[in-house]
Amino acid sequence: MPAASIPRGDYRRFISVPTRWMDNDIYGHVNNVVYYALFDTAINTYLIAEGGLDITAGAAIGVAVETQCQFMQSVAFPDLLEVGLRVGRLGTSSVRYELAIFKQDGPYAVAAGYFVHVFVDREQRRAVPIPARVRSALEQLQPPDAGG
Amino acid sequence: MPAASIPRGDYRRFISVPTRWMDNDIYGHVNNVVYYALFDTAINTYLIAEGGLDITAGAAIGVAVETQCQFMQSVAFPDLLEVGLRVGRLGTSSVRYELAIFKQDGPYAVAAGYFVHVFVDREQRRAVPIPARVRSALEQLQPPDAGG
Amino acid sequence: MPAASIPRGDYRRFISVPTRWMDNDIYGHVNNVVYYALFDTAINTYLIAEGGLDITAGAAIGVAVETQCQFMQSVAFPDLLEVGLRVGRLGTSSVRYELAIFKQDGPYAVAAGYFVHVFVDREQRRAVPIPARVRSALEQLQPPDAGG
Amino acid sequence: MPAASIPRGDYRRFISVPTRWMDNDIYGHVNNVVYYALFDTAINTYLIAEGGLDITAGAAIGVAVETQCQFMQSVAFPDLLEVGLRVGRLGTSSVRYELAIFKQDGPYAVAAGYFVHVFVDREQRRAVPIPARVRSALEQLQPPDAGG
Repeated sequence: MPAASIPRGDYRRFISVPTRWMDNDIYGHVNNVVYYALFDTAINTYLIAEGGLDITAGAAIGVAVETQCQFMQSVAFPDLLEVGLRVGRLGTSSVRYELAIFKQDGPYAVAAGYFVHVFVDREQRRAVPIPARVRSALEQLQPPDAGG
Repeated sequence: MPAASIPRGDYRRFISVPTRWMDNDIYGHVNNVVYYALFDTAINTYLIAEGGLDITAGAAIGVAVETQCQFMQSVAFPDLLEVGLRVGRLGTSSVRYELAIFKQDGPYAVAAGYFVHVFVDREQRRAVPIPARVRSALEQLQPPDAGG
Repeated sequence: MPAASIPRGDYRRFISVPTRWMDNDIYGHVNNVVYYALFDTAINTYLIAEGGLDITAGAAIGVAVETQCQFMQSVAFPDLLEVGLRVGRLGTSSVRYELAIFKQDGPYAVAAGYFVHVFVDREQRRAVPIPARVRSALEQLQPPDAGG
Repeated sequence: MPAASIPRGDYRRFISVPTRWMDNDIYGHVNNVVYYALFDTAINTYLIAEGGLDITAGAAIGVAVETQCQFMQSVAFPDLLEVGLRVGRLGTSSVRYELAIFKQDGPYAVAAGYFVHVFVDREQRRAVPIPARVRSALEQLQPPDAGG
Protein backbone atom coordinates (compact mmCIF):
# COMPACT_ATOMS: atom_id res chain seq x y z
CA MET A 1 0.00 0.00 0.00
CA PRO A 2 1.94 3.09 -1.17
CA ALA A 3 -0.02 5.30 1.20
CA ALA A 4 2.20 3.91 3.96
CA SER A 5 5.00 6.21 2.92
CA ILE A 6 3.29 9.59 3.24
CA PRO A 7 5.86 11.87 4.89
CA ARG A 8 5.30 14.77 7.26
CA GLY A 9 6.67 17.17 4.69
CA ASP A 10 3.46 16.78 2.68
CA TYR A 11 1.53 18.77 5.30
CA ARG A 12 1.62 22.43 6.21
CA ARG A 13 0.43 22.54 9.81
CA PHE A 14 0.38 20.04 12.69
CA ILE A 15 -2.06 19.86 15.59
CA SER A 16 -1.24 17.65 18.60
CA VAL A 17 -4.00 15.39 19.85
CA PRO A 18 -3.50 12.94 22.69
CA THR A 19 -5.61 9.80 22.49
CA ARG A 20 -8.24 9.00 25.11
CA TRP A 21 -9.05 5.77 26.91
CA MET A 22 -12.31 5.38 25.03
CA ASP A 23 -10.63 5.69 21.63
CA ASN A 24 -9.45 2.08 21.91
CA ASP A 25 -12.05 -0.41 20.81
CA ILE A 26 -12.33 -4.09 21.73
CA TYR A 27 -9.47 -4.89 19.35
CA GLY A 28 -7.14 -2.74 21.41
CA HIS A 29 -6.49 -0.01 18.87
CA VAL A 30 -7.95 3.38 18.10
CA ASN A 31 -11.28 2.82 16.38
CA ASN A 32 -11.55 3.99 12.77
CA VAL A 33 -14.32 6.43 13.72
CA VAL A 34 -12.00 8.36 16.01
CA TYR A 35 -9.71 9.44 13.16
CA TYR A 36 -12.54 11.54 11.77
CA ALA A 37 -13.04 13.15 15.17
CA LEU A 38 -9.36 14.09 15.06
CA PHE A 39 -9.71 15.49 11.54
CA ASP A 40 -12.69 17.60 12.60
CA THR A 41 -10.84 18.80 15.68
CA ALA A 42 -7.69 19.75 13.78
CA ILE A 43 -9.61 21.64 11.09
CA ASN A 44 -11.74 23.60 13.53
CA THR A 45 -8.86 24.30 15.88
CA TYR A 46 -7.05 25.88 12.95
CA LEU A 47 -10.09 27.80 11.63
CA ILE A 48 -10.86 29.24 15.07
CA ALA A 49 -7.28 30.19 15.87
CA GLU A 50 -6.17 31.42 12.46
CA GLY A 51 -9.37 32.19 10.56
CA GLY A 52 -11.43 33.76 13.32
CA LEU A 53 -14.23 31.25 12.86
CA ASP A 54 -16.93 31.86 15.48
CA ILE A 55 -18.56 28.47 15.99
CA THR A 56 -21.07 29.82 18.52
CA ALA A 57 -22.51 32.85 16.75
CA GLY A 58 -20.80 33.43 13.39
CA ALA A 59 -23.08 33.89 10.37
CA ALA A 60 -21.20 31.34 8.26
CA ILE A 61 -20.42 27.82 9.41
CA GLY A 62 -18.57 24.95 7.76
CA VAL A 63 -20.52 21.71 7.33
CA ALA A 64 -19.01 18.42 6.18
CA VAL A 65 -20.20 17.14 2.81
CA GLU A 66 -17.71 14.34 2.24
CA THR A 67 -14.94 12.69 4.21
CA GLN A 68 -12.62 9.74 3.58
CA CYS A 69 -9.79 7.99 5.37
CA GLN A 70 -7.31 5.18 4.71
CA PHE A 71 -5.86 3.34 7.69
CA MET A 72 -2.31 2.11 7.17
CA GLN A 73 -1.10 1.29 10.67
CA SER A 74 -2.74 0.88 14.08
CA VAL A 75 -2.27 3.27 16.95
CA ALA A 76 -3.58 2.91 20.48
CA PHE A 77 -4.21 4.89 23.63
CA PRO A 78 -2.04 6.27 25.25
CA ASP A 79 -0.24 7.23 22.01
CA LEU A 80 0.23 10.92 21.39
CA LEU A 81 -0.77 11.79 17.83
CA GLU A 82 -0.37 14.69 15.47
CA VAL A 83 -2.75 15.66 12.69
CA GLY A 84 -1.10 17.04 9.57
CA LEU A 85 -3.23 19.49 7.62
CA ARG A 86 -3.07 21.09 4.19
CA VAL A 87 -5.62 22.53 1.77
CA GLY A 88 -6.26 20.92 -1.60
CA ARG A 89 -9.00 22.48 -3.73
CA LEU A 90 -10.20 25.86 -2.48
CA GLY A 91 -13.46 26.96 -4.11
CA THR A 92 -15.87 29.83 -3.57
CA SER A 93 -17.92 28.12 -0.89
CA SER A 94 -16.09 24.86 -0.34
CA VAL A 95 -12.67 23.64 0.65
CA ARG A 96 -11.07 20.25 0.53
CA TYR A 97 -8.69 19.62 3.41
CA GLU A 98 -6.15 16.84 3.12
CA LEU A 99 -5.11 15.33 6.43
CA ALA A 100 -2.93 12.66 7.88
CA ILE A 101 -2.33 11.19 11.32
CA PHE A 102 1.21 10.73 12.61
CA LYS A 103 2.55 9.21 15.77
CA GLN A 104 4.58 11.70 17.74
CA ASP A 105 7.99 11.66 16.04
CA GLY A 106 6.76 9.14 13.46
CA PRO A 107 8.07 10.09 10.00
CA TYR A 108 5.24 8.48 8.01
CA ALA A 109 1.48 8.76 8.30
CA VAL A 110 -0.48 5.98 10.00
CA ALA A 111 -3.66 7.20 8.30
CA ALA A 112 -4.52 9.75 5.63
CA GLY A 113 -7.67 11.15 4.10
CA TYR A 114 -9.67 14.20 3.12
CA PHE A 115 -12.56 16.28 4.45
CA VAL A 116 -14.71 18.64 2.38
CA HIS A 117 -16.38 21.60 4.07
CA VAL A 118 -19.06 23.73 2.48
CA PHE A 119 -19.66 27.06 4.13
CA VAL A 120 -23.33 27.84 4.70
CA ASP A 121 -25.27 30.48 6.56
CA ARG A 122 -26.13 29.28 10.05
CA GLU A 123 -29.89 29.78 9.78
CA GLN A 124 -30.87 28.64 6.29
CA ARG A 125 -27.94 26.32 5.69
CA ARG A 126 -27.49 27.60 2.14
CA ALA A 127 -24.03 27.87 0.58
CA VAL A 128 -22.27 31.19 1.07
CA PRO A 129 -18.81 32.40 0.06
CA ILE A 130 -16.04 31.42 2.47
CA PRO A 131 -15.56 34.41 4.81
CA ALA A 132 -12.50 36.50 3.86
CA ARG A 133 -10.49 35.86 7.01
CA VAL A 134 -11.15 32.13 6.87
CA ARG A 135 -10.14 32.10 3.20
CA SER A 136 -6.94 33.86 4.01
CA ALA A 137 -6.13 31.26 6.65
CA LEU A 138 -6.95 28.46 4.22
CA GLU A 139 -4.64 29.90 1.58
CA GLN A 140 -1.79 29.56 4.04
CA LEU A 141 -2.41 25.81 4.07
CA GLN A 142 -2.06 25.44 0.32
CA PRO A 143 1.13 23.93 -1.08
CA PRO A 144 3.67 26.60 -2.06
CA ASP A 145 3.15 25.86 -5.74
CA ALA A 146 -0.65 25.95 -5.64
CA GLY A 147 -0.86 29.22 -7.52
CA GLY A 148 -3.93 31.25 -6.51
CA MET B 1 -25.82 16.24 -6.04
CA PRO B 2 -27.15 13.03 -7.60
CA ALA B 3 -26.32 11.09 -4.46
CA ALA B 4 -29.43 12.68 -2.94
CA SER B 5 -31.62 10.24 -4.80
CA ILE B 6 -30.25 6.94 -3.50
CA PRO B 7 -33.32 4.77 -2.78
CA ARG B 8 -33.79 2.11 -0.12
CA GLY B 9 -34.08 -0.55 -2.80
CA ASP B 10 -30.33 -0.27 -3.42
CA TYR B 11 -29.62 -1.98 -0.07
CA ARG B 12 -30.13 -5.55 1.06
CA ARG B 13 -30.46 -5.30 4.82
CA PHE B 14 -31.47 -2.56 7.25
CA ILE B 15 -30.37 -2.06 10.85
CA SER B 16 -32.27 0.40 13.06
CA VAL B 17 -30.18 2.83 15.09
CA PRO B 18 -31.69 5.51 17.27
CA THR B 19 -29.62 8.65 17.61
CA ARG B 20 -28.22 9.73 20.97
CA TRP B 21 -28.12 13.12 22.65
CA MET B 22 -24.37 13.41 22.17
CA ASP B 23 -24.59 12.76 18.43
CA ASN B 24 -25.73 16.35 17.90
CA ASP B 25 -22.87 18.79 17.67
CA ILE B 26 -22.89 22.53 18.29
CA TYR B 27 -24.57 23.07 14.92
CA GLY B 28 -27.58 21.07 16.08
CA HIS B 29 -27.20 18.12 13.75
CA VAL B 30 -25.63 14.69 13.93
CA ASN B 31 -21.87 15.15 13.62
CA ASN B 32 -20.23 13.67 10.53
CA VAL B 33 -18.12 11.38 12.70
CA VAL B 34 -21.19 9.61 14.07
CA TYR B 35 -22.19 8.24 10.67
CA TYR B 36 -19.08 6.08 10.69
CA ALA B 37 -19.99 4.80 14.15
CA LEU B 38 -23.34 3.77 12.69
CA PHE B 39 -21.65 2.07 9.73
CA ASP B 40 -19.38 0.12 12.07
CA THR B 41 -22.31 -0.82 14.27
CA ALA B 42 -24.47 -2.01 11.38
CA ILE B 43 -21.69 -4.10 9.85
CA ASN B 44 -20.72 -5.80 13.09
CA THR B 45 -24.32 -6.33 14.18
CA TYR B 46 -24.84 -8.20 10.93
CA LEU B 47 -21.58 -10.16 11.11
CA ILE B 48 -22.24 -11.28 14.69
CA ALA B 49 -25.88 -12.22 14.09
CA GLU B 50 -25.58 -13.79 10.65
CA GLY B 51 -21.90 -14.65 10.25
CA GLY B 52 -21.11 -15.95 13.73
CA LEU B 53 -18.31 -13.41 14.17
CA ASP B 54 -16.88 -13.72 17.68
CA ILE B 55 -15.49 -10.28 18.47
CA THR B 56 -14.22 -11.36 21.88
CA ALA B 57 -12.25 -14.50 21.12
CA GLY B 58 -12.52 -15.41 17.43
CA ALA B 59 -9.24 -16.10 15.61
CA ALA B 60 -10.10 -13.79 12.69
CA ILE B 61 -11.21 -10.21 13.12
CA GLY B 62 -12.20 -7.53 10.62
CA VAL B 63 -10.18 -4.31 10.70
CA ALA B 64 -11.05 -1.17 8.74
CA VAL B 65 -8.61 -0.18 6.02
CA GLU B 66 -10.62 2.52 4.26
CA THR B 67 -13.92 4.29 4.82
CA GLN B 68 -15.74 7.12 3.07
CA CYS B 69 -19.04 8.97 3.43
CA GLN B 70 -20.98 11.67 1.59
CA PHE B 71 -23.45 13.75 3.58
CA MET B 72 -26.49 14.87 1.60
CA GLN B 73 -28.96 15.97 4.25
CA SER B 74 -28.78 16.71 7.98
CA VAL B 75 -30.40 14.60 10.64
CA ALA B 76 -30.58 15.30 14.36
CA PHE B 77 -31.26 13.62 17.67
CA PRO B 78 -33.93 12.34 18.44
CA ASP B 79 -34.32 11.06 14.86
CA LEU B 80 -34.59 7.32 14.44
CA LEU B 81 -32.29 6.15 11.65
CA GLU B 82 -31.78 3.04 9.60
CA VAL B 83 -28.51 1.88 8.08
CA GLY B 84 -28.85 0.17 4.70
CA LEU B 85 -26.16 -2.41 3.98
CA ARG B 86 -24.98 -4.30 0.92
CA VAL B 87 -21.73 -5.90 -0.16
CA GLY B 88 -19.78 -4.62 -3.15
CA ARG B 89 -16.47 -6.30 -3.87
CA LEU B 90 -15.91 -9.53 -1.94
CA GLY B 91 -12.29 -10.71 -2.08
CA THR B 92 -10.34 -13.46 -0.35
CA SER B 93 -9.47 -11.47 2.74
CA SER B 94 -11.31 -8.23 2.22
CA VAL B 95 -14.82 -7.00 1.69
CA ARG B 96 -16.18 -3.64 0.63
CA TYR B 97 -19.49 -2.80 2.27
CA GLU B 98 -21.66 -0.11 0.76
CA LEU B 99 -23.88 1.67 3.24
CA ALA B 100 -26.41 4.44 3.47
CA ILE B 101 -28.29 6.18 6.24
CA PHE B 102 -32.03 6.69 6.00
CA LYS B 103 -34.48 8.47 8.22
CA GLN B 104 -37.15 6.14 9.45
CA ASP B 105 -39.64 5.95 6.55
CA GLY B 106 -37.44 8.24 4.45
CA PRO B 107 -37.30 6.96 0.86
CA TYR B 108 -33.89 8.44 0.01
CA ALA B 109 -30.55 8.26 1.76
CA VAL B 110 -29.37 11.22 3.84
CA ALA B 111 -25.79 9.92 3.64
CA ALA B 112 -23.99 7.15 1.77
CA GLY B 113 -20.53 5.67 1.72
CA TYR B 114 -18.38 2.58 1.91
CA PHE B 115 -16.29 0.69 4.44
CA VAL B 116 -13.52 -1.81 3.60
CA HIS B 117 -12.71 -4.57 6.08
CA VAL B 118 -9.66 -6.78 5.87
CA PHE B 119 -9.82 -9.94 7.94
CA VAL B 120 -6.67 -10.59 9.95
CA ASP B 121 -5.67 -13.00 12.67
CA ARG B 122 -6.22 -11.49 16.07
CA GLU B 123 -2.67 -11.94 17.33
CA GLN B 124 -0.38 -11.09 14.43
CA ARG B 125 -2.79 -8.89 12.51
CA ARG B 126 -1.85 -10.49 9.19
CA ALA B 127 -4.41 -10.99 6.46
CA VAL B 128 -6.29 -14.28 6.53
CA PRO B 129 -9.10 -15.65 4.35
CA ILE B 130 -12.56 -14.51 5.39
CA PRO B 131 -13.99 -17.28 7.63
CA ALA B 132 -16.47 -19.51 5.76
CA ARG B 133 -19.55 -18.62 7.78
CA VAL B 134 -18.81 -14.91 7.57
CA ARG B 135 -18.31 -15.24 3.81
CA SER B 136 -21.62 -16.99 3.45
CA ALA B 137 -23.34 -14.15 5.32
CA LEU B 138 -21.57 -11.57 3.16
CA GLU B 139 -22.69 -13.29 -0.04
CA GLN B 140 -26.26 -12.78 1.06
CA LEU B 141 -25.65 -9.04 0.98
CA GLN B 142 -24.48 -9.00 -2.63
CA PRO B 143 -26.83 -7.70 -5.30
CA PRO B 144 -28.84 -10.47 -6.96
CA ASP B 145 -26.88 -10.09 -10.19
CA ALA B 146 -23.44 -10.15 -8.57
CA GLY B 147 -22.60 -13.60 -9.89
CA GLY B 148 -20.42 -15.58 -7.47
CA MET C 1 -23.63 -4.90 46.74
CA PRO C 2 -27.40 -4.50 47.35
CA ALA C 3 -27.71 -2.32 44.26
CA ALA C 4 -27.51 -5.54 42.26
CA SER C 5 -31.13 -6.32 43.04
CA ILE C 6 -32.81 -3.17 41.67
CA PRO C 7 -35.94 -4.40 39.87
CA ARG C 8 -37.64 -2.93 36.81
CA GLY C 9 -40.69 -2.10 38.90
CA ASP C 10 -38.74 0.74 40.51
CA TYR C 11 -38.89 2.75 37.28
CA ARG C 12 -41.78 4.46 35.55
CA ARG C 13 -40.72 4.62 31.90
CA PHE C 14 -38.32 2.62 29.72
CA ILE C 15 -36.39 3.78 26.67
CA SER C 16 -34.74 1.19 24.41
CA VAL C 17 -31.15 1.86 23.39
CA PRO C 18 -29.12 -0.55 21.31
CA THR C 19 -25.40 -0.53 22.00
CA ARG C 20 -22.90 0.52 19.34
CA TRP C 21 -19.61 -1.02 18.26
CA MET C 22 -17.61 1.83 19.77
CA ASP C 23 -19.28 1.44 23.18
CA ASN C 24 -17.04 -1.53 23.92
CA ASP C 25 -13.66 -0.56 25.24
CA ILE C 26 -10.43 -2.56 25.20
CA TYR C 27 -11.74 -4.73 28.05
CA GLY C 28 -14.59 -5.92 25.84
CA HIS C 29 -17.46 -4.32 27.72
CA VAL C 30 -19.42 -1.12 27.47
CA ASN C 31 -17.23 1.66 28.84
CA ASN C 32 -18.46 3.37 32.00
CA VAL C 33 -18.69 6.69 30.17
CA VAL C 34 -21.31 5.35 27.79
CA TYR C 35 -23.86 4.80 30.56
CA TYR C 36 -24.06 8.53 31.05
CA ALA C 37 -24.64 9.00 27.33
CA LEU C 38 -27.56 6.61 27.67
CA PHE C 39 -28.91 8.48 30.69
CA ASP C 40 -28.75 11.78 28.78
CA THR C 41 -30.40 10.21 25.76
CA ALA C 42 -33.24 8.66 27.76
CA ILE C 43 -33.97 11.87 29.65
CA ASN C 44 -33.99 14.09 26.58
CA THR C 45 -35.94 11.59 24.50
CA TYR C 46 -38.64 11.71 27.17
CA LEU C 47 -38.55 15.50 27.61
CA ILE C 48 -38.84 16.10 23.85
CA ALA C 49 -41.61 13.56 23.29
CA GLU C 50 -43.66 14.15 26.43
CA GLY C 51 -42.63 17.59 27.67
CA GLY C 52 -42.37 19.45 24.39
CA LEU C 53 -38.75 20.42 25.09
CA ASP C 54 -37.34 22.29 22.09
CA ILE C 55 -33.61 21.64 22.20
CA THR C 56 -32.92 23.79 19.14
CA ALA C 57 -34.72 27.01 19.94
CA GLY C 58 -36.60 26.77 23.24
CA ALA C 59 -35.99 29.56 25.76
CA ALA C 60 -35.33 27.17 28.64
CA ILE C 61 -32.82 24.32 28.47
CA GLY C 62 -31.79 21.69 30.98
CA VAL C 63 -28.12 21.56 31.93
CA ALA C 64 -26.50 18.83 34.00
CA VAL C 65 -25.19 19.88 37.41
CA GLU C 66 -24.46 16.48 38.93
CA THR C 67 -24.53 12.88 37.77
CA GLN C 68 -23.58 9.57 39.36
CA CYS C 69 -23.63 5.90 38.40
CA GLN C 70 -22.89 2.54 40.01
CA PHE C 71 -21.90 -0.34 37.76
CA MET C 72 -23.05 -3.73 39.01
CA GLN C 73 -22.66 -5.98 35.96
CA SER C 74 -20.96 -5.71 32.57
CA VAL C 75 -22.79 -5.47 29.30
CA ALA C 76 -21.30 -5.45 25.82
CA PHE C 77 -22.13 -4.61 22.24
CA PRO C 78 -24.30 -5.98 20.61
CA ASP C 79 -26.53 -6.12 23.72
CA LEU C 80 -29.85 -4.33 23.51
CA LEU C 81 -30.41 -2.22 26.59
CA GLU C 82 -33.25 -0.37 28.23
CA VAL C 83 -32.98 2.71 30.38
CA GLY C 84 -35.45 2.90 33.27
CA LEU C 85 -36.40 6.42 34.30
CA ARG C 86 -38.20 7.97 37.24
CA VAL C 87 -38.17 11.38 38.90
CA GLY C 88 -36.94 11.81 42.47
CA ARG C 89 -36.84 15.36 43.80
CA LEU C 90 -38.70 17.89 41.65
CA GLY C 91 -37.86 21.49 42.56
CA THR C 92 -38.68 24.87 41.06
CA SER C 93 -35.77 24.93 38.62
CA SER C 94 -34.17 21.56 39.10
CA VAL C 95 -35.07 17.92 38.86
CA ARG C 96 -33.30 14.79 39.98
CA TYR C 97 -33.82 11.85 37.66
CA GLU C 98 -33.12 8.36 38.91
CA LEU C 99 -32.12 5.93 36.21
CA ALA C 100 -31.06 2.36 35.72
CA ILE C 101 -29.81 0.26 32.82
CA PHE C 102 -31.35 -3.13 32.12
CA LYS C 103 -30.54 -5.79 29.61
CA GLN C 104 -33.46 -6.52 27.38
CA ASP C 105 -35.63 -8.88 29.45
CA GLY C 106 -33.22 -8.65 32.37
CA PRO C 107 -35.16 -8.35 35.64
CA TYR C 108 -32.46 -6.50 37.59
CA ALA C 109 -30.46 -3.40 36.79
CA VAL C 110 -26.88 -3.77 35.56
CA ALA C 111 -26.20 -0.13 36.52
CA ALA C 112 -28.07 2.59 38.37
CA GLY C 113 -27.56 6.25 39.12
CA TYR C 114 -28.96 9.74 39.08
CA PHE C 115 -28.77 12.88 36.96
CA VAL C 116 -29.65 16.40 38.13
CA HIS C 117 -30.85 18.96 35.59
CA VAL C 118 -31.18 22.65 36.29
CA PHE C 119 -33.30 24.57 33.83
CA VAL C 120 -31.70 27.80 32.65
CA ASP C 121 -32.44 30.36 30.00
CA ARG C 122 -30.56 29.58 26.81
CA GLU C 123 -28.80 32.93 26.50
CA GLN C 124 -27.74 33.90 30.01
CA ARG C 125 -27.65 30.43 31.52
CA ARG C 126 -29.39 31.61 34.69
CA ALA C 127 -31.82 29.37 36.54
CA VAL C 128 -35.47 29.64 35.48
CA PRO C 129 -38.59 27.78 36.60
CA ILE C 130 -39.11 24.45 34.83
CA PRO C 131 -41.51 25.14 31.92
CA ALA C 132 -45.08 24.07 32.71
CA ARG C 133 -45.36 21.35 30.09
CA VAL C 134 -42.00 19.87 31.02
CA ARG C 135 -43.03 19.91 34.69
CA SER C 136 -46.22 18.11 33.89
CA ALA C 137 -44.26 15.41 32.05
CA LEU C 138 -41.84 15.12 34.97
CA GLU C 139 -44.67 14.68 37.46
CA GLN C 140 -45.75 11.63 35.51
CA LEU C 141 -42.39 10.05 36.32
CA GLN C 142 -42.76 10.46 40.07
CA PRO C 143 -43.57 7.42 42.16
CA PRO C 144 -47.34 7.07 42.78
CA ASP C 145 -46.90 7.96 46.44
CA ALA C 146 -44.78 11.06 45.84
CA GLY C 147 -47.54 13.46 46.83
CA GLY C 148 -47.14 16.68 44.86
CA MET D 1 -22.29 25.75 45.64
CA PRO D 2 -19.07 25.53 47.67
CA ALA D 3 -17.61 23.09 45.14
CA ALA D 4 -17.01 26.13 42.93
CA SER D 5 -13.97 27.04 44.97
CA ILE D 6 -11.93 23.84 44.68
CA PRO D 7 -8.32 24.94 44.13
CA ARG D 8 -5.57 23.25 42.15
CA GLY D 9 -3.61 22.64 45.33
CA ASP D 10 -6.10 19.94 46.31
CA TYR D 11 -4.73 17.64 43.59
CA ARG D 12 -1.42 15.83 43.28
CA ARG D 13 -0.96 15.33 39.56
CA PHE D 14 -2.26 17.08 36.43
CA ILE D 15 -2.86 15.61 32.99
CA SER D 16 -3.45 17.95 30.03
CA VAL D 17 -6.35 17.11 27.75
CA PRO D 18 -7.34 19.28 24.83
CA THR D 19 -11.04 19.26 24.00
CA ARG D 20 -12.32 17.93 20.67
CA TRP D 21 -14.89 19.31 18.27
CA MET D 22 -17.37 16.57 19.13
CA ASP D 23 -17.18 17.28 22.86
CA ASN D 24 -19.47 20.28 22.38
CA ASP D 25 -23.12 19.37 22.37
CA ILE D 26 -26.03 21.30 20.86
CA TYR D 27 -25.90 23.74 23.80
CA GLY D 28 -22.39 24.78 22.78
CA HIS D 29 -20.53 23.42 25.76
CA VAL D 30 -18.68 20.24 26.61
CA ASN D 31 -21.28 17.56 27.26
CA ASN D 32 -21.43 16.18 30.79
CA VAL D 33 -20.56 12.71 29.51
CA VAL D 34 -17.18 13.87 28.23
CA TYR D 35 -15.92 14.72 31.71
CA TYR D 36 -16.00 11.05 32.59
CA ALA D 37 -14.01 10.25 29.45
CA LEU D 38 -11.41 12.73 30.69
CA PHE D 39 -11.40 11.15 34.16
CA ASP D 40 -10.87 7.69 32.64
CA THR D 41 -8.13 9.01 30.38
CA ALA D 42 -6.27 10.78 33.18
CA ILE D 43 -6.41 7.78 35.50
CA ASN D 44 -5.23 5.29 32.90
CA THR D 45 -2.56 7.63 31.53
CA TYR D 46 -1.14 7.78 35.04
CA LEU D 47 -1.45 4.04 35.76
CA ILE D 48 0.26 3.12 32.49
CA ALA D 49 3.08 5.66 32.83
CA GLU D 50 3.72 5.38 36.57
CA GLY D 51 2.22 2.05 37.61
CA GLY D 52 3.23 -0.11 34.66
CA LEU D 53 -0.38 -1.07 33.99
CA ASP D 54 -0.52 -3.23 30.84
CA ILE D 55 -4.00 -2.64 29.44
CA THR D 56 -3.46 -5.07 26.56
CA ALA D 57 -2.17 -8.18 28.29
CA GLY D 58 -1.74 -7.60 32.04
CA ALA D 59 -3.34 -10.16 34.35
CA ALA D 60 -5.04 -7.51 36.52
CA ILE D 61 -7.22 -4.76 35.10
CA GLY D 62 -9.11 -1.90 36.75
CA VAL D 63 -12.85 -1.77 36.16
CA ALA D 64 -15.11 1.10 37.17
CA VAL D 65 -17.67 0.35 39.88
CA GLU D 66 -18.89 3.85 40.68
CA THR D 67 -18.31 7.34 39.31
CA GLN D 68 -19.71 10.75 40.08
CA CYS D 69 -19.25 14.32 38.90
CA GLN D 70 -20.48 17.81 39.78
CA PHE D 71 -20.47 20.45 37.06
CA MET D 72 -19.84 23.96 38.35
CA GLN D 73 -18.96 25.91 35.20
CA SER D 74 -19.19 25.30 31.47
CA VAL D 75 -16.22 24.80 29.21
CA ALA D 76 -16.22 24.44 25.44
CA PHE D 77 -14.05 23.29 22.57
CA PRO D 78 -11.38 24.55 21.80
CA ASP D 79 -10.57 25.01 25.51
CA LEU D 80 -7.47 23.27 26.78
CA LEU D 81 -8.21 21.46 30.02
CA GLU D 82 -6.27 19.82 32.80
CA VAL D 83 -7.43 16.94 34.95
CA GLY D 84 -6.30 17.06 38.56
CA LEU D 85 -5.91 13.68 40.20
CA ARG D 86 -5.44 12.42 43.75
CA VAL D 87 -6.18 9.19 45.57
CA GLY D 88 -8.72 9.05 48.38
CA ARG D 89 -9.40 5.64 49.90
CA LEU D 90 -6.90 2.96 48.87
CA GLY D 91 -8.08 -0.56 49.72
CA THR D 92 -6.78 -4.05 48.97
CA SER D 93 -8.52 -4.38 45.60
CA SER D 94 -10.13 -1.01 45.11
CA VAL D 95 -9.12 2.60 44.91
CA ARG D 96 -11.13 5.78 44.97
CA TYR D 97 -9.68 8.52 42.77
CA GLU D 98 -10.76 12.08 43.32
CA LEU D 99 -10.58 14.25 40.23
CA ALA D 100 -11.29 17.74 39.04
CA ILE D 101 -11.26 19.54 35.71
CA PHE D 102 -9.49 22.89 35.37
CA LYS D 103 -9.23 25.30 32.51
CA GLN D 104 -5.63 25.88 31.54
CA ASP D 105 -4.41 28.44 34.08
CA GLY D 106 -7.79 28.43 35.83
CA PRO D 107 -7.28 28.48 39.62
CA TYR D 108 -10.58 26.77 40.51
CA ALA D 109 -12.15 23.57 39.27
CA VAL D 110 -14.96 23.75 36.70
CA ALA D 111 -16.03 20.21 37.64
CA ALA D 112 -15.08 17.71 40.32
CA GLY D 113 -15.93 14.12 41.15
CA TYR D 114 -14.70 10.66 41.97
CA PHE D 115 -14.09 7.34 40.24
CA VAL D 116 -13.80 3.96 41.97
CA HIS D 117 -11.75 1.20 40.35
CA VAL D 118 -11.78 -2.40 41.46
CA PHE D 119 -8.90 -4.50 40.21
CA VAL D 120 -9.98 -7.86 38.81
CA ASP D 121 -8.28 -10.63 36.90
CA ARG D 122 -8.74 -10.18 33.17
CA GLU D 123 -10.29 -13.57 32.50
CA GLN D 124 -12.67 -14.25 35.38
CA ARG D 125 -13.28 -10.66 36.41
CA ARG D 126 -12.96 -11.50 40.09
CA ALA D 127 -11.41 -9.05 42.55
CA VAL D 128 -7.66 -9.36 43.03
CA PRO D 129 -5.19 -7.34 45.10
CA ILE D 130 -3.95 -4.19 43.41
CA PRO D 131 -0.60 -5.09 41.74
CA ALA D 132 2.38 -3.89 43.77
CA ARG D 133 3.73 -1.42 41.23
CA VAL D 134 0.29 0.08 40.63
CA ARG D 135 -0.21 0.39 44.39
CA SER D 136 3.07 2.17 44.75
CA ALA D 137 2.05 4.66 42.07
CA LEU D 138 -1.33 5.17 43.75
CA GLU D 139 0.30 5.88 47.10
CA GLN D 140 2.12 8.76 45.47
CA LEU D 141 -1.26 10.34 44.73
CA GLN D 142 -2.39 10.28 48.35
CA PRO D 143 -2.41 13.51 50.31
CA PRO D 144 0.82 14.00 52.34
CA ASP D 145 -1.06 13.41 55.59
CA ALA D 146 -2.85 10.25 54.49
CA GLY D 147 -0.80 7.98 56.69
CA GLY D 148 -0.26 4.57 55.10
